[in-house]
Amino acid sequence: MRRVQVVAGNGLLHRRLFLKESAGLAGLALLRATPAAAAQSQDVPAYMKAPGQGMRPYGERSPYESAVQRLVVPVTGTTGSGSSRTPLEHIEGIITPSSLHFERHHSGVPDIPPADHRLLIHGLVDRPLTFDLAALSRYPLVSRVHFVECSGNSTALYAAEPLQATAGSLHGMVSCSEWTGVPLGTLLAEAGVKPAGRWLLAEGADAAAMSRSIPLEKALDDALIAIYQNGERLRPENGYPMRLLLPGWEGNTNVKWLRRLKVVAEPVMTKDETSKYTDSLPTGKALQFTFPMGVKSVITSPSGGSTMQGRGLYQISGLAWSGAGRIRRVDVSADGGATWGQAAIEGPVHAKALTRFRMAWRWDGGPVVLASRAADDTGAVQPTRRALIAERGTPFRYHYHAIQSWSVAASGEVRNVYV
Amino acid sequence: MRRVQVVAGNGLLHRRLFLKESAGLAGLALLRATPAAAAQSQDVPAYMKAPGQGMRPYGERSPYESAVQRLVVPVTGTTGSGSSRTPLEHIEGIITPSSLHFERHHSGVPDIPPADHRLLIHGLVDRPLTFDLAALSRYPLVSRVHFVECSGNSTALYAAEPLQATAGSLHGMVSCSEWTGVPLGTLLAEAGVKPAGRWLLAEGADAAAMSRSIPLEKALDDALIAIYQNGERLRPENGYPMRLLLPGWEGNTNVKWLRRLKVVAEPVMTKDETSKYTDSLPTGKALQFTFPMGVKSVITSPSGGSTMQGRGLYQISGLAWSGAGRIRRVDVSADGGATWGQAAIEGPVHAKALTRFRMAWRWDGGPVVLASRAADDTGAVQPTRRALIAERGTPFRYHYHAIQSWSVAASGEVRNVYV
Repeated sequence: MRRVQVVAGNGLLHRRLFLKESAGLAGLALLRATPAAAAQSQDVPAYMKAPGQGMRPYGERSPYESAVQRLVVPVTGTTGSGSSRTPLEHIEGIITPSSLHFERHHSGVPDIPPADHRLLIHGLVDRPLTFDLAALSRYPLVSRVHFVECSGNSTALYAAEPLQATAGSLHGMVSCSEWTGVPLGTLLAEAGVKPAGRWLLAEGADAAAMSRSIPLEKALDDALIAIYQNGERLRPENGYPMRLLLPGWEGNTNVKWLRRLKVVAEPVMTKDETSKYTDSLPTGKALQFTFPMGVKSVITSPSGGSTMQGRGLYQISGLAWSGAGRIRRVDVSADGGATWGQAAIEGPVHAKALTRFRMAWRWDGGPVVLASRAADDTGAVQPTRRALIAERGTPFRYHYHAIQSWSVAASGEVRNVYV
Repeated sequence: MRRVQVVAGNGLLHRRLFLKESAGLAGLALLRATPAAAAQSQDVPAYMKAPGQGMRPYGERSPYESAVQRLVVPVTGTTGSGSSRTPLEHIEGIITPSSLHFERHHSGVPDIPPADHRLLIHGLVDRPLTFDLAALSRYPLVSRVHFVECSGNSTALYAAEPLQATAGSLHGMVSCSEWTGVPLGTLLAEAGVKPAGRWLLAEGADAAAMSRSIPLEKALDDALIAIYQNGERLRPENGYPMRLLLPGWEGNTNVKWLRRLKVVAEPVMTKDETSKYTDSLPTGKALQFTFPMGVKSVITSPSGGSTMQGRGLYQISGLAWSGAGRIRRVDVSADGGATWGQAAIEGPVHAKALTRFRMAWRWDGGPVVLASRAADDTGAVQPTRRALIAERGTPFRYHYHAIQSWSVAASGEVRNVYV
């Protein structure tokens, strides 16, 4: 049995433990099993003494899991405006359960009878067209795994002092689904975009008529009109019956309840792209149309608000993603960034999708600072918070994607810290 | 714009339409959009005139989708025994929503408080051990996308006359999830398997104490103790809080509510592997321990019980899978197997996972017979029904994996047929 290799400070172990040699962990004498008497048989529990519940047409999760919920953060004084956040610290793998997908609404979730809904494509086109859900279902569909992230995700980390909160409440406005839909290029080709057409106005059927201007190149690249999410029809809060999906681009441009795409020559300057979703600079000017989300990662276990269960072996688990492409590598530090070890990426790696990384870690019981740093296949590397703020100044509110650090105290308490 | 190529009889179109040239469909004049007046604006629907529903801690699907359900088929006179089947004709992509994952229970779903549950590893081991859910969560986890299929799936197709039913009711005892769990090899290494240990007895904590004998090689290859399904904890009907996952092997060996793994020298011959889950031969003998599921596919749209909506462009969509590895290719026929065209495989392709295939099809309104034929990366090809039955004889009841044919009548009616 090969000796387990410590690859960075404070007990980070080689990623081979997650690849083909997990059996090597047995040599560590750090595992969590409880010895049993050799001849032990188990007591027969009550639930083995009578038949259980029968089959159901539509299943539900265990009632023992009901505490796993989105954190609902409404905007005070509004109806249906605000966000709810995925409890990242409670989920595993890369697919976010649809019931826990984050929400960000500007005037609530409309109740849309699918037979009444139409998508209109008009403006600078040869043939204005409308599409209903039944029609879209007959077009060539494609399925892709992609994250959606609110551009305001993690904005609390711009604050001068670190807010004490969970991974989900700080960073949970990101989720990942298998989306199925029609490539938007198919529909635009059918309508025939005139040469002057360079942008699209995308408008939602919510009471806010959420509207964004989208460059035509993105529409013709990898944009979808999504009609399924994780196998079933879109959830209401994700745009039922159809939404725009712009892989890797800030969430609000993935217009939900999509009712209209107008081909135009220039950006429309809607209320939603002037009053917000712009990046304020120290000069008083602002960057506009900063669409792709930066390369980013967060350790979800252990994470803020959790408590360690004594020294010994732990799995560090987290999520990495980039709006530019695939995650190429994630490094983890247990000494606040002084030394780094490469994490295992075990599981599907899709472009513009959440990517699960994991690392085995032997905690000796002393204070440590955990952090993760992602790199994508364009060569972009997740910056430190210090570097990000030095570059942008403090008026910035969107696109926060710096390294997240969690301190682990000797008491076992895990806290959000700035390093 | 390239000319669209017909690749097989009765209007099957080249798969490039699903790859990078879907815009070429516009040239077909077969699409489904409705022309709109050039200056059209849309009426503002009632749901845009007032704020919608607010955020929720745990989401639900749209009430307009509530008819999409599993087909519940209880065994008469039992409590909680029988099956429920995934409505394959209503889902898309490769992930089965957990609420629609098929069920097959032998005495219902036990209500297991997770803190009370233990997995015991004992028998021919150096150190008998027990593991609770909290302990397992600290081991190295891996995430993998795999199907689970009941070995009795599609058994109705052995009948002499074709049963008229939907794709889901005929073939819906297969589903696919992203599973996250601990490689079983890790736990066995910790317990220390003695040289005489060659098999495992796996026992569930349901009232049937569902039990199977599993070869040690499979346990050390790709077996998992799964604790998450599609991001969240296992659903109760999928083994909450932990199940055995044996990728590609018949569903019943993936023992749910796993409470015990006993390392033994030989198969135990449990009631569940002698009274059933064996393959009866015409000689009166039976094959036993026929674990891997064969290479298989089914067209889910159009499929049995559906009605065509007039001539023109359709998407043929279906699922393919193999217990031996990755799907390499799927061919589709619209003339009952006389000619075949290669389908597009667009979306993630994982080993031992459902794989989505699609094909564009121009229906001219006449009678046709649709069929799909999958091949995997071991070179295995899905057989015809005739060849399968010729090889096995008629007493066989499990492991049906022959080509499924659907007839489309001029009336638009779609029926199950034997070709």
